[in-house]
Order: sequence, then structure tokens, then C-alpha cells
Amino acid sequence: MEGVDHLAHERNKTEFDVDAMKIVWAGSRHAFEVSDRMARLVASDPAFQKDNRTRLGRKELFKNTLRKAAHAWKRILDLRLTEEEAGRLRTFVDEPAFTDLHWGMFVPAIKGQGTDEQQQKWLPLAYKMQIIGCYAQTELGHGSNVQGLETTATFDPETDEFVIHSPTLTSCKWWPGGLGKISTHAVVYARLLTNGQEHGVHGFIVQLRSMDDHMPLPGITIGDIGMKFGNGAYNTMDNGVLKFDHVRIPRNQMLMRVLQVTREGKCVQSNVPRQLIYGTMVFVRQSIVADASVALSRAVCIATRYSAVRRQFGSQDGGVETQVIDYKTQQNRLFPLLASAYAFRFVGEWLKWLYTDVTQRLQANDFSTLPEAHACTAGLKSLTTTATADAIEECRKLCGGHGYLCASGLPELFAVYVPACTYEGDNIVLLLQVARFLVKTVSQLGSGKKPVGTTAYLGRVQDLLQCRCDVQTAEDWLKPSVVLEAFEARSARMCVARAQNLSKFENPEDGFAELSADLVEAAVAHCQLIVVSKFIDKLQQDIPGNGVKQQLQNLCYIYALNLLHNYLGDFLSTGCITPKQASLANDQLRSLYSQIRPNAIALVDAFNYTDHYLGSVLGRYDGNVYPKLYEEAWKDPLNDSVVPDGYHEYVRPMLKQQLRNARL
Amino acid sequence: MEGVDHLAHERNKTEFDVDAMKIVWAGSRHAFEVSDRMARLVASDPAFQKDNRTRLGRKELFKNTLRKAAHAWKRILDLRLTEEEAGRLRTFVDEPAFTDLHWGMFVPAIKGQGTDEQQQKWLPLAYKMQIIGCYAQTELGHGSNVQGLETTATFDPETDEFVIHSPTLTSCKWWPGGLGKISTHAVVYARLLTNGQEHGVHGFIVQLRSMDDHMPLPGITIGDIGMKFGNGAYNTMDNGVLKFDHVRIPRNQMLMRVLQVTREGKCVQSNVPRQLIYGTMVFVRQSIVADASVALSRAVCIATRYSAVRRQFGSQDGGVETQVIDYKTQQNRLFPLLASAYAFRFVGEWLKWLYTDVTQRLQANDFSTLPEAHACTAGLKSLTTTATADAIEECRKLCGGHGYLCASGLPELFAVYVPACTYEGDNIVLLLQVARFLVKTVSQLGSGKKPVGTTAYLGRVQDLLQCRCDVQTAEDWLKPSVVLEAFEARSARMCVARAQNLSKFENPEDGFAELSADLVEAAVAHCQLIVVSKFIDKLQQDIPGNGVKQQLQNLCYIYALNLLHNYLGDFLSTGCITPKQASLANDQLRSLYSQIRPNAIALVDAFNYTDHYLGSVLGRYDGNVYPKLYEEAWKDPLNDSVVPDGYHEYVRPMLKQQLRNARL
Repeated sequence: MEGVDHLAHERNKTEFDVDAMKIVWAGSRHAFEVSDRMARLVASDPAFQKDNRTRLGRKELFKNTLRKAAHAWKRILDLRLTEEEAGRLRTFVDEPAFTDLHWGMFVPAIKGQGTDEQQQKWLPLAYKMQIIGCYAQTELGHGSNVQGLETTATFDPETDEFVIHSPTLTSCKWWPGGLGKISTHAVVYARLLTNGQEHGVHGFIVQLRSMDDHMPLPGITIGDIGMKFGNGAYNTMDNGVLKFDHVRIPRNQMLMRVLQVTREGKCVQSNVPRQLIYGTMVFVRQSIVADASVALSRAVCIATRYSAVRRQFGSQDGGVETQVIDYKTQQNRLFPLLASAYAFRFVGEWLKWLYTDVTQRLQANDFSTLPEAHACTAGLKSLTTTATADAIEECRKLCGGHGYLCASGLPELFAVYVPACTYEGDNIVLLLQVARFLVKTVSQLGSGKKPVGTTAYLGRVQDLLQCRCDVQTAEDWLKPSVVLEAFEARSARMCVARAQNLSKFENPEDGFAELSADLVEAAVAHCQLIVVSKFIDKLQQDIPGNGVKQQLQNLCYIYALNLLHNYLGDFLSTGCITPKQASLANDQLRSLYSQIRPNAIALVDAFNYTDHYLGSVLGRYDGNVYPKLYEEAWKDPLNDSVVPDGYHEYVRPMLKQQLRNARL
Repeated sequence: MEGVDHLAHERNKTEFDVDAMKIVWAGSRHAFEVSDRMARLVASDPAFQKDNRTRLGRKELFKNTLRKAAHAWKRILDLRLTEEEAGRLRTFVDEPAFTDLHWGMFVPAIKGQGTDEQQQKWLPLAYKMQIIGCYAQTELGHGSNVQGLETTATFDPETDEFVIHSPTLTSCKWWPGGLGKISTHAVVYARLLTNGQEHGVHGFIVQLRSMDDHMPLPGITIGDIGMKFGNGAYNTMDNGVLKFDHVRIPRNQMLMRVLQVTREGKCVQSNVPRQLIYGTMVFVRQSIVADASVALSRAVCIATRYSAVRRQFGSQDGGVETQVIDYKTQQNRLFPLLASAYAFRFVGEWLKWLYTDVTQRLQANDFSTLPEAHACTAGLKSLTTTATADAIEECRKLCGGHGYLCASGLPELFAVYVPACTYEGDNIVLLLQVARFLVKTVSQLGSGKKPVGTTAYLGRVQDLLQCRCDVQTAEDWLKPSVVLEAFEARSARMCVARAQNLSKFENPEDGFAELSADLVEAAVAHCQLIVVSKFIDKLQQDIPGNGVKQQLQNLCYIYALNLLHNYLGDFLSTGCITPKQASLANDQLRSLYSQIRPNAIALVDAFNYTDHYLGSVLGRYDGNVYPKLYEEAWKDPLNDSVVPDGYHEYVRPMLKQQLRNARL
């Protein structure tokens, strides 16, 4: 961040305290300081350089990732980093690696599903990385539907062992990260068979490779599943395939916190509530929502800065062209994404609270809020990841042609982010779960069951079915109560209408299948309401810093009114607002864009991303884009020689009309 | 296409004549036969193998493309292929290469802008590939705005030469395909300066490299601009950077068909109408629309076939799971894309007719339809490329996790397709041009000027502002006149409303800038109407083949009613239809999905794509997906060794707690 600042004129326009906004974005001064320190640590360490990533072949790329993972671990040990610091450091290294699964899935699986004894045995090994683990659930033929898994774990009472087996090709484990080349162990999910009976799918700790020479153990076939989307992206990860041929493991390697298999092969349910696993899902999904705000804000930061640097058209007399950020079409695409980044940040923050709340209730055996919390996190995971993936690609397009260069950072950001739409629950499948919950909630309203949490508004359904929006001027749209009511009324009316349509079917399941696309729309409306309402809640808090709250208010209304515009069909068809009111909302939106415009650069500076983490020539803090793009180009391997490999064999014979005799 | 057909049960359900549909898709029996023959020729030639593409490093990849380009040229010569056949062959080789620019831009530029003399000199060399050319227009700092280019061509009367120069870093040519490593020549666009005066931007033929040793000529710096989105994708192309340091070329290498520079350095306008260049733009853009239908249909073919192969959920008793194509949520996402592929095909066909019509008129000095044709092709280029890029990514998501593997073909299809949204006119900039034309058309209605071609409906604007949709049942939506009127009314009302809003501004340009996002929406509405109306026109034709027309009708209504649903806000806010009618359209849409469902596989078979061209394990004709995915995985370089490179240096020390002493 040294040298000339080509964006200084932009930064001088700022109307709020950027440092205060940085704290708001980070969540707390402490969180800001840890992140800032770790980001700088990584950025200043040449071992973590990543700008050559898209130029490496697969093997080189993978080896380089192993080096970085080892280096990161060494730094964590050397500097005695806390768990929080270590997590932030790994984030800023910004390269998918086997360690993500080890820390993010393997360790939590043992913690969540292992007995105390099992935890005592395995966790210390994992914490020291004396073993490296992965999470082997999905199979070649089975993704979303865990109950459809084919791998079997058959108890053999003679030897007190489970026999893990892949009975078909489609039962091969397929996709687990860290599996293909690195993990020594895995938590493997398989159908439990004992005494000739099936007992559902459970997790088993299976050693995969020898601790001596890293070779797969007998009966185990493992490999990498091949190239994935993008140049670097997830190709730094060894997503793997795993086939078992009657592999035996001791009985005590089944994770038995919930269900135990006795020496005789009997299944005994423990007194640990099964609902605990939903608590884990809430945890994983809230972290996905938090990640969405990070990925989205990176893309927005790049597109916003480059939109201020880039000039096109608008000069009549050969003078300086117009900054593209000054075009309303650019603002209309970019600023709602900037607003979404903040919106997702705050809803993610709230989800973190929700997780602790749910956890405390579970420990007190209170399961009452769990279905609502589960639906809410499922829906928000879906909403935020879909929006973020689309937004990254939109940001890339907003950078014009240069966004297509890997040097822009955006192709890689997209390719590495987009699997979030599919993993941990396909986004459409998740919305169907939300819809199911909403329909159930609506159907129980008559019975006096009071909806809780994010569905509480459905308790006022009679009011919401009748209310009329009283907006008469564009400024009227700047009232939280007006916006909230419009979103609540839209969602409530859609839920009720869907529930009514469903009730026309004799078999509710047939109706659910037939109307599923409509139901998904109601779920989306509900989830958008959650994001809007949590943003509004945030604004009720005391937010220090000169002008900070004003900016956040503008962003909140941009987020809400842009949604209103994009989903206008919902609002109009349910009669929540009139076309005239929609048009006023649009006028207000344009005015908000003008208010945000001078603060746009500062609003992305508040994310506090280092140039290293951003990894984008277009998004450089100093705006010095073109000389650096030029410099970057020459690093391509094709530029190693002036005359390219292949010229003499293939191009020259063409030019010299000697192709007929050429060997190709 | 041999062996067991796992999709035979699907193909048996077909209710129409697939072979007849193949002819409809191809456009004619002749077109079908040429395509079919060329596709098989390429698919059966091992030299054109492409399934290893994503596993190659940049240099290897590029060299391999040079080999294929030479091989293709050799085949074209050996088999004495016609121009049409050669074009199809290059399409099916399916790998961006320098030849695309040579044939697609360099040759047409000389044809279109060169004098007869210049054509006689340069075209024979280009036709035999004794020279290889590219098209050097865009610069590092200048993309869309041709008038902003900085490169200069200064006439030196002393030597009768032009001096081509790059005065700044941002004036470097940047992006031209084929430039970086291969082209011997380029058509370079530069500001013409003569006698101290500027005369706009013109094209100049410049030799770049020595014909002896392929080294850049003195004063010329050339290189590749580096990695782009995707693994293979456009990384097979040497998009280049080019800097001139006072490079001299003879005066007769300025392309002088429209403007001539005399020996004295005077500029003389020729009698060739300038409008001819718009004719070229119409040509280029109609071919982009045709390409959109190809790219989209490939993605849809893959997603449709795999949706029939893949099964998830739906089995209560451990039996066979449900084919995902049977889920309404899947149909609701997939079938509109299938319908779009056909819709874009037919509008592309119509654009081809429009181009010949415009050309004939131009030759007869009739420029009356040119502005309308220009707006129409600009809009359709924008509409179809945006929709196609989004659709490819949606198809990828519709394949679940496996769509993320390069073996699915979809990541590469997306990465290679998506620049179409930016090149030949950024899609938003193009829509603004359409909007400008629409506003002008509306403003001239009072003066009695009759709108032509695709804007003819605006001549009935008074009716369209008043008409009321009379749909009362879901079946009523199956009338062409009803659908057409709804789309016409929506577009006309949006255009008129926008024009009225604009008239409130004192300065029309200020209004246009302020309301540009709204104007873009009107342009989209107009372009969607064109696609719908051309699809309906197609159905008025005689279409032979059992059941073929019925399928096309279903697709046409799916296309239109799905748009109506997605843009419901437009239709409702302009009062074209009521919420109740929208709901009936939705009911009809669901019913159409059920009717298309048994024909879905046959409808994608009708594209007649070889497995080679599709390049997708998931989209294989025989549906034998899983064994082939498994087989494909092992080809990854990471699987060359069981223990990966880097294990001993980086992983083992971690496992053995010896990292502290390791050198990383």
C-alpha cells in the first residue's frame, strides 16, 4: 500500500470514518486487530505468494500447496498462535488445502459424534497433526441424499470388527477433500449392518494409509478425481475417490456417541439427543454465510476500485473519459452488490448469535427453537451462496474485458467459491426444506401454535394479509417500518397462497412435488425478509463513528429496494404495493446511488483487505492498474521464448506451404 | 455411440420424429448433412482428441493447439473441403485458435475496408495462409470506445509512409487473439494524423514478424497477455499485447476503401457509403447469436441427459431413487433453457435472413432499414449471450457436484463462452443503443414516421396502451395472439413510459444518463418480444415430421410463459395482465413441463452432437456416466504416483512432528 495513490481523489471524497467502519465490518475491535495482524503476517511472507498460481500445472500447483500448508503450520507452532489466530491465518493464506477438511470436518466429526473415550484417543493425535483426516461421505452415485449411501459397515462378531466395503462402483467415496493424496485417516459414512439388520448410516474412523510409507492400506484404492473448474481454485485440493474391498476396523472405531454397537453386535441408543447433529449443521451453515460475505466483499472491492480507475466514453473533445463508476447502469449493478456484502455480513453475525443460543438451549434440553433455527440457516445458506456466486461473476463482467484475465483475480474467486452452492446441501433442496417448514408453520397457525424467531411475523398473518402500504413519496421508502411491512406482507401472502394451493391436493406429498417451484419462491421471499430485518435490527444498535450509521442506512435501503425491484412480480401480484409505489422506490434507489457514490471506495476500503489477499491487479489499493497488468503479462510461460514452442513444427510449414509433407 | 444405451428407456418414450427435428435444428437437410459429416470426421480423428485439454500446462496446451490448427488445415487442403465444410470442421475441432481471427476478422477486415487493389494483393496470401493475420483494435486502456483509441498513424510525406506509434502504456494493443505468438500481420486501428490534423480511427495492415525467423520486426514489442478464465478454454489462444515504437509502413497499407490518403497527405472520401460498416456489424452479431444457440444447446444437452441418468431421493424403501429430471424444481430450471436453445436457434436463423436483406438494400443504396436492423442485432446479441452464459452455469449447477469436474465439460464451456458477453460490444452498452433507438422511434410516432421491422408494433401503440388480456383459463395462454399481444403491450408500455420520463428532463442526455438502468429494461423487453415473435413466426411455417411441430409449440410457450413469470413485475406494473392471469400462465407452464418431459432426451438428441463435440462424461449419448467418470479420474497427473510429489518434504515432517527443522 505504498507509493502513489491513484485513488486518493476518491478517498478524499469520503463522508464517514473509515476506521470506525472497519471495526463494524470486523464485528469488534478485537476481531479487527486479529484479522489485520494475521493478514499482514501472511502478506509480508514471500512463502505465501500466490500470484503465480494460475500458471502452474496440476502437480506443481499441488506440491506448492503442500509446501504452504506445512509453512502455515510451522508459523502457527513457532508463533504459538491461538486457535482464533490460526484460523484467520489459514483464511488469509487463501488456498484450499487438505488442512481445511482436517480442521473443518474431521476434527468436528469426532468431537460431535465420538464418545468421550474416542475423543480422548483421537483428538490429541489430530490436534498435533500426527494423523491427518478427511470426511468421506458423498459417493460417486450419491450426493445430497445421505440415506441413499451404499457403502456398508458390517459387524463381524467373531473378530469384533466392522468390515467396510464398497459393493458397487457408484458406492465409491467421491469428492472428499484431502482424501485423494494426503489423508492418513477418514471418517467414513456407511450403512451399519449387524446381525443381518440395517441400522442407518453412521460414521467410522478408518485408517487409509500407512504411517510408514504413506501407501494405501490393503483393500483400499484411493486416487484424485481430476481437474475441477478454474486454473488454481480447488485444484490445490486432492478431492478423492476411495474404494473399499472388505477393509476391517476395530469395533471401537465406529463413532458411538449416539448409537452404540455392543460386543454382541446389538445396537443401543445412548441418551445423547439426536438433535445435536442439527446443532452442528447450524454451526457449519452459519460459517458458510459468513464466508459468503467475505467472498462477495472481495469481488465487490475489486469491481468498485477498478470502476473508479477505468474510464470509457463520455469525452466529446478528446479529453479525459468518464469513470465508469459514474454511469448509472454501472451503479445499478454494482451498488446493490456492495449493499449485499454488508447485508450478508450482518446476517452472518446474527447467525453466530443464533448458534450460541441454540447450543445453550440444546444443553438445557430445550429443542423448541431448533426446527426454526435449522430452517433459517438452511435458507440463508442457500440465499447467500447463490447470490454471492452470481455476484462474483457480475463483478467480473463489471470489470469489462480485463475481468476475464486471471490477473483480475475474479475468475479464480468465482471458480473457488461456486461449489458453496452445492456442498452442505444443494441450494434448491435446502429451499424446499425451508418451504416445508413454512407451510407447516402456516398450517399450525389455526391451532394456536405461536411461530417463533424468524417466523414470528406469521403470527400476525391476519394483519399482514390486509395491510396496505402507505408510501406516497420516494422519501417514504426510507422508513424501516414501511420496508419491513412490505417484505413481511409479501412473504406472508406468498406462504399462505402456497399453503392454500397445496390444500387442494388430496395427497399433500403429490401437491408438494407438483408445486415445488412455487414453494421455492416463497422460501426465497422469507429468507430475503430475514436478511432485510437483520440489517434493520443492526441499525437500531449504537454504531459509533462519524457518518458510519448514515452509510449503513443507505446500504440497507439499497439492499431492500433493489430486491423489491428485482422481485416486483411477487410484491405486485400479492398486492403488497402498487405499481406507483414501486416506481417511487425506484426513484429513491437512484437517489441512494448518488449518495453512496462518493463513499464507494471508502466502503470497500473498510473491508481492510490486503493486496495479497485480494489477489487482483484490477483491485489494487493504489489503483495503479495498467502498468501492473502490463508487467504481469510477461510472466506467462508462453513469454519464456519469443518464438513459441511448436512454431517450427506446425506454423512455419503452414506459412511456407509445406504442410502436405509435414508430420503432425 | 456404440454399446449399451442406458438412456434407451428414455428414447423409447419419444413422441415425435427425431430425424425430422434434426433437420429443423440444422436449418436444412444440406446444412444437416454437412454438419453431420464434418462432426464425424473430427470425432473419428485421434489428432483432434481434446479430453486431455484441462490437464495440460499453458505451453503444452498452446503447442497442442498449433498442432491441431495445422492438422485441420492439412485436412481441409487434402480433402479439398468447401468453405462451408471448412468452417464446420473448425467449429467441431472446438478449440479457440489464431485461425479464428485470421478467417473471422483479418480476412473480412481487408474484404470490407480494403480497396480492390488491396484485396487483390493481400487476400490471396491470406487465403493460402502464406501470411497469418489478426485484428488489433482494443488497447490496454480502451475497449468499447473505439473513438478513444490512442495508437497513432502519422503520415510522413517525405517517405510516403505512415508511422505507427504507441504514445502511452495504455495505448498498447491488448487482447487481440492470435497476436501474442503467431500472427505475421495485423490490421491495426489507429488515429490517422496527416498534415498536423486528425482524421479519426482507421485500419492499417502492419507486418509484425519476420517471414524468415518469426522474430518481431524492429520497433515492435509483442507478447502474450497471460492466463484467462478456465483451464483450457481461451488459454489455447495467444491473446496479445503489442507496442509500436515509430514503425513505418508504406502508404498503401492503410485500408482505403472509404477514406483515401493521397501522396500529398490529403484525405479524400471515396464514394463507398460509410454505412457499409454497419452491414459488417450486423453480420458479426448474427453469427454471435447463432453461436449462442450452439453453446446453450450443448450445455442443455449435457444437463438433460445427466438429469435422466442421475437419481436422488424419492425412494422410501431402499429401492431405486427418482431420476432428478422428474422433479418439478429441476424441470422448472432446465426446460426453459431447452426452450431458449430452440428459441435462439430460430431467431438466429431469422437474423441470417435479415443480414442478406440488409446487404441487398445497401447495394441498392437503400439505408432505410439499417438503423432498425442495427438496433435489433445489437439487442439480440446482448440478450442471447447474457442468457446463454447464465444458462451454461445453471446447467452446471443442475448436474450437482459432478458438474464442477472438468470431465463434465461444463466449466470449460462456460469459461470459453462467457467472453461473448463482453466482446463485440459490452452487453449493457448495446442495450443502451437499443434503448436510444426505441426512444427515438417512440418520439417520432407523432410525426407520422412509420416504425419498421421489429419495431412495427409500436405503430399500434395506441391500441397496445389500451388493450386488455382476455385470458380466463390456463389453456387460453396457448394462443399465439394472446402471448404476442402481452409481450407487445408490455414492451410498448415500457417504451412509452420511459420516453415520458425522459421528456421531464431539460437536457435529454442528462435524462438518458440518469434513467439508463430503466431504459435498459425497456430494451430487454423489446428484445424478448423479438425472440418470442420469431419463434411464433417459425411455427406458422410448414414443418414436416411426425409430432415435430407439437414439440416446438410446447417449447415456444415454455419460452414465452417462463419469461412472463420471470419478468412478472414488468407485466403487472404496466397492467398488461392481472395477477390471476399470471397465475394461470404458471399453471400452464407446469402442464407444458409434463408434456415435454417424455421428449426431453429426444429434443437434445436432435442437436445431433457427437460425444467428441460435447466433450462431457455426464452428457454421453449412452448415459454410461459413472464408469467413465471413474476411468477419467485416473488420468489426472496427480495419479501418476501413489505417493504425491511433496509428501516427503512437506507432509511427512508434519506427521512426524519434525517441521521445526524442515526447510520449506
